[in-house]
Amino acid sequence: MAAFEAAESSSPRPKPNPLAPFKYSKRVLLKTLLERGDGGAEFIGERVVIGGWVKSSREEKIEPPRAPPTPQDQAGPAEEQKDVSCVEILQTRIPFFRSIVKVFGGINYTVRPKLEGPAVPPKLLPSTAYLRVSDGSCVPSLLVVVDSSLASPSQLLPTGTCILVQGVLRQSSNPGKHAVELEADKVLHIGTVDQSSYVFSKKRLPLDMLRSCLHFRPRTTTVGSVMRLRSSLTFATHTFFQNHGFLNVQVPIITSTDSEGSSEKFLITAISSRDSEKEDQKFTKEKDNISLDVVKAAVKEKSALVEQLKRSESNKEALAAAVQDLKKTNELAAQLEAREKSKHGASSKPESSQNPFIEKTYLTVSGRLHLESYASALGNVYSFGPRFRATRVESPKLLPEMWMVETEMAFSKLENAMDCADDFFKVLCKWALDNCIEDMKFVCKRIDKTSIDRLQSATSKPFAKITYTEAVEALKKAKDKMEVKVEWGFAFTTEHLSYLADEIYKSPVIIYNYPRDLKPFYVRLNDDGKTVAAFDMIVPKVGKLMSGSQNELRVDRLTKRIKELGLPKEQYEWYLDLKRHGAVSTSGFSFNFDLMLLFTTGMTNVRDVIPFPRGLGKPNN
Amino acid sequence: MAAFEAAESSSPRPKPNPLAPFKYSKRVLLKTLLERGDGGAEFIGERVVIGGWVKSSREEKIEPPRAPPTPQDQAGPAEEQKDVSCVEILQTRIPFFRSIVKVFGGINYTVRPKLEGPAVPPKLLPSTAYLRVSDGSCVPSLLVVVDSSLASPSQLLPTGTCILVQGVLRQSSNPGKHAVELEADKVLHIGTVDQSSYVFSKKRLPLDMLRSCLHFRPRTTTVGSVMRLRSSLTFATHTFFQNHGFLNVQVPIITSTDSEGSSEKFLITAISSRDSEKEDQKFTKEKDNISLDVVKAAVKEKSALVEQLKRSESNKEALAAAVQDLKKTNELAAQLEAREKSKHGASSKPESSQNPFIEKTYLTVSGRLHLESYASALGNVYSFGPRFRATRVESPKLLPEMWMVETEMAFSKLENAMDCADDFFKVLCKWALDNCIEDMKFVCKRIDKTSIDRLQSATSKPFAKITYTEAVEALKKAKDKMEVKVEWGFAFTTEHLSYLADEIYKSPVIIYNYPRDLKPFYVRLNDDGKTVAAFDMIVPKVGKLMSGSQNELRVDRLTKRIKELGLPKEQYEWYLDLKRHGAVSTSGFSFNFDLMLLFTTGMTNVRDVIPFPRGLGKPNN
Repeated sequence: MAAFEAAESSSPRPKPNPLAPFKYSKRVLLKTLLERGDGGAEFIGERVVIGGWVKSSREEKIEPPRAPPTPQDQAGPAEEQKDVSCVEILQTRIPFFRSIVKVFGGINYTVRPKLEGPAVPPKLLPSTAYLRVSDGSCVPSLLVVVDSSLASPSQLLPTGTCILVQGVLRQSSNPGKHAVELEADKVLHIGTVDQSSYVFSKKRLPLDMLRSCLHFRPRTTTVGSVMRLRSSLTFATHTFFQNHGFLNVQVPIITSTDSEGSSEKFLITAISSRDSEKEDQKFTKEKDNISLDVVKAAVKEKSALVEQLKRSESNKEALAAAVQDLKKTNELAAQLEAREKSKHGASSKPESSQNPFIEKTYLTVSGRLHLESYASALGNVYSFGPRFRATRVESPKLLPEMWMVETEMAFSKLENAMDCADDFFKVLCKWALDNCIEDMKFVCKRIDKTSIDRLQSATSKPFAKITYTEAVEALKKAKDKMEVKVEWGFAFTTEHLSYLADEIYKSPVIIYNYPRDLKPFYVRLNDDGKTVAAFDMIVPKVGKLMSGSQNELRVDRLTKRIKELGLPKEQYEWYLDLKRHGAVSTSGFSFNFDLMLLFTTGMTNVRDVIPFPRGLGKPNN
Repeated sequence: MAAFEAAESSSPRPKPNPLAPFKYSKRVLLKTLLERGDGGAEFIGERVVIGGWVKSSREEKIEPPRAPPTPQDQAGPAEEQKDVSCVEILQTRIPFFRSIVKVFGGINYTVRPKLEGPAVPPKLLPSTAYLRVSDGSCVPSLLVVVDSSLASPSQLLPTGTCILVQGVLRQSSNPGKHAVELEADKVLHIGTVDQSSYVFSKKRLPLDMLRSCLHFRPRTTTVGSVMRLRSSLTFATHTFFQNHGFLNVQVPIITSTDSEGSSEKFLITAISSRDSEKEDQKFTKEKDNISLDVVKAAVKEKSALVEQLKRSESNKEALAAAVQDLKKTNELAAQLEAREKSKHGASSKPESSQNPFIEKTYLTVSGRLHLESYASALGNVYSFGPRFRATRVESPKLLPEMWMVETEMAFSKLENAMDCADDFFKVLCKWALDNCIEDMKFVCKRIDKTSIDRLQSATSKPFAKITYTEAVEALKKAKDKMEVKVEWGFAFTTEHLSYLADEIYKSPVIIYNYPRDLKPFYVRLNDDGKTVAAFDMIVPKVGKLMSGSQNELRVDRLTKRIKELGLPKEQYEWYLDLKRHGAVSTSGFSFNFDLMLLFTTGMTNVRDVIPFPRGLGKPNN
């Protein structure tokens, strides 16, 4: 554990001057200034350059002769100023509200002219702008005081304005809440905001609204905190595995091997404009053919699905429906084939493929089989990257593109993978507490007040490890509380998992030795012939966070299983080869990194903890 | 710099017992034993478990009474035994060669029975197997001595056999070359090899042959070294950025925003087997439509290509050809549209899409625009992940899927990005020398003897920074040596870049202020109106390793450029939004991580430095 602390506790910049500016832009990161025991007090009197975005603001007219600030102005600049800013916006828009404010409060305000562009002339009456500025490096913001002689307040005041200012740090006028503030003596850059179209002119948008303006989302304190946690846990992941002697292997994203026998995949087609017209025509023909190819692929996958259905959270009716569905798709394929033949004749087969890949290629669903190839040579390996499922299921915990940590270890068994999973999970929890405590405090305040407790409890307690059969027994005892009754051989529902982690154990639980049909073909069959050496780790609030297994070493069992599940054996020949030549017992797991962020922050929708849910500009369905 | 060393120098396992086994499999990694100053001598007498794969082997008959090994046997067990192993295989296959060996050498050998399966009975005459075993954790291998009473030599001896053995470390019988060897007292696991079909029964396959058996490729010492370097530089990348206050942002792989206006992209289609037949039919219809969609997309992209051609390494004839091509594709689109209309009538438009995404989606070409969204809120960000180009160009330095490091910094300018690029590159070079010296020595021996010198020279010298115009002047002076003559406004060819880095400067060179038409739309226009604030870093042996820029802040210039290049403006509205509200000057770069491995190792084909070129089982074209 000491190793991790050594890695992270090292300061971002060389000592001894802790206020040295960020190397590549000459400004001081607010983190270095404000996330200190003294809140930056030791730097009072120092001249610094800081840059960031205005979170809230107010303006004070300077009456000649200049009066000292009233006690009211000094009270709670952080919170109250936020409100002022909010009120100000309303004032500029609802004239009648303006008079109400005049009646109820003694707030100093100025009606700002509507901004048409950056070239707004400074107002004649001198004033002072008080701006709370955040630069995204930490939770706290800095109060920046700018005299109107330096820059037009109308440009500075709108929420979201970007400024780069030089100034001197002085004692805060609200010493109870803040240690320092910055008195600007030079404004180096202003990035104005067009208030009429800027979404954050209003304050505290709900999370689902935020998702529809993805490109500005990171400017909110909440998303900032979540993303800092995410970045830190990314580094924790690499540090954990590298310090434990694992090698990082970047498994391919584009692949033709489907390790999970998944029924939901993304097909990839190359689009190129460098082709001649002739090739375009060929491509068009080929594309016509794909309609048949797609249906054929669907037939193959539906066959697999029928076998898999027992593994998923489904019942016998679903199985019957799947069989019927397969039958129909088969008929469709036959019809299409006949049509294609008559349409194109013998020459319909494209002579060359537009695709740079020889076989049909997909986005990877899991990298574990690929990792096993490296584990069977280099020992202990891990991968950290995006994995894909062409899901259209509406779920707050499932997305088409999710980041997974996967590992595979040579000469290891089920219990080793469970130990490693346990350690890894605890290290991440501890890392968040040790390295991101300000962000953790913020998510406790804003999102879920139990977040810190949850992490602390996860790192301190040993986890329960129970067999699948024991879990079934435990749930049967509580059957009155379950909507779906538990039966051996069926997958647990979300409700079951939640009951185990949130009600019975109140902590993460590892469930192992699952029925064979609930897990992929490559998992080792136990000696009882019924269960396999697989495990899931379920955690409170989230459910299943990771899945792992010891993998089957015996070629005959693997081939039998591939056949039983109707998987295309030729796709797995290379994998069987690993077991034919110098085979080694391997075990490993897939860890859903995105869901770990839900556990850490207490967020409930995974879209709120990833940088860009579903790509930019596209709302989520 | 101290920070990096602190992060990496921390041992993988807690002190004080440096021979503690790997935590998750109870075996000792050979790295901990052999990569020490004393080669492991201090552990003589200790009992350990080690696991790995046989690299080479020989067998010695035990004549009663047992004689001490002859001096000849003791000489160079590492190298000579390798040869013996090779010879042995030949012996078993070419009977006449066997007698030649008998004449020329006094090598002890045994003709092994052809293995039919794992159940070969041990031979009656007692013997000792000498196995050089590697576990992939480091370059050196360990000699493991196994008496035939413990396990059948016929199972142990084939190259590629996997073994897990317990034994006692003793002084090496060849102390000049090795410090220790292991005398086995228990064999815990044997993973046999079927020699008749195992590709590595022959030694030292050429790299291009290796690429066709990807799943076993990591078992070679060369690929092992390259992948250890790759893993270590992956960690170096995260450590550099995290220690410099950057936040990691995982940009989306599936996106509808094309930051480079690229003409070569991968289109994504969801394949799901959970759909009803009705939906399948819809899908088929939709797929029919795609043929038109694809051609329409091609028209759009070809329009962009015409504009872009000046930027690529092409001449005026190519431009004329592209214009002609665009014209023809336009005609094709019109024809297809007419055909589609008559075929499907008004109902041809699919009512619902099979794809979970609303818009057409692609695999990301670059993440820099997405990063700018985060830089415009959180300051300094980086991303490290796969990027895609649907290229069909045969090139040893270009693949459809490549890993890139991308960064974007707020409040920063072109020179800041160049400084950061320079520092990052040097840190990686130094990291490889400081943390992977054994692997570097190996690649020097096996791949390119100048590799260590190249890294050392890159870290010690300040880089040349020249403008594009200066580079053109320098190349014009050497025009007799160039196949393609240099002209201002045209892109440099590979030959030009090589001449600059390998001949003129003999070190990495940064070229900046490129002509506007050679760089993407988002790069800042310089005051001269002709050049933009972009740079490339070119390095010896590789050519262009990274590209960077300061990005345009002015909305009017950006919209003008988007229009000029014929890019779809609606796709970039979110990006323009960043410049409309609280805009900040950003700069950053894209660094080709895969090519960095070519620079580090001296390999010449990028397929040899990535874990799985083109996915498993598919040979490269």
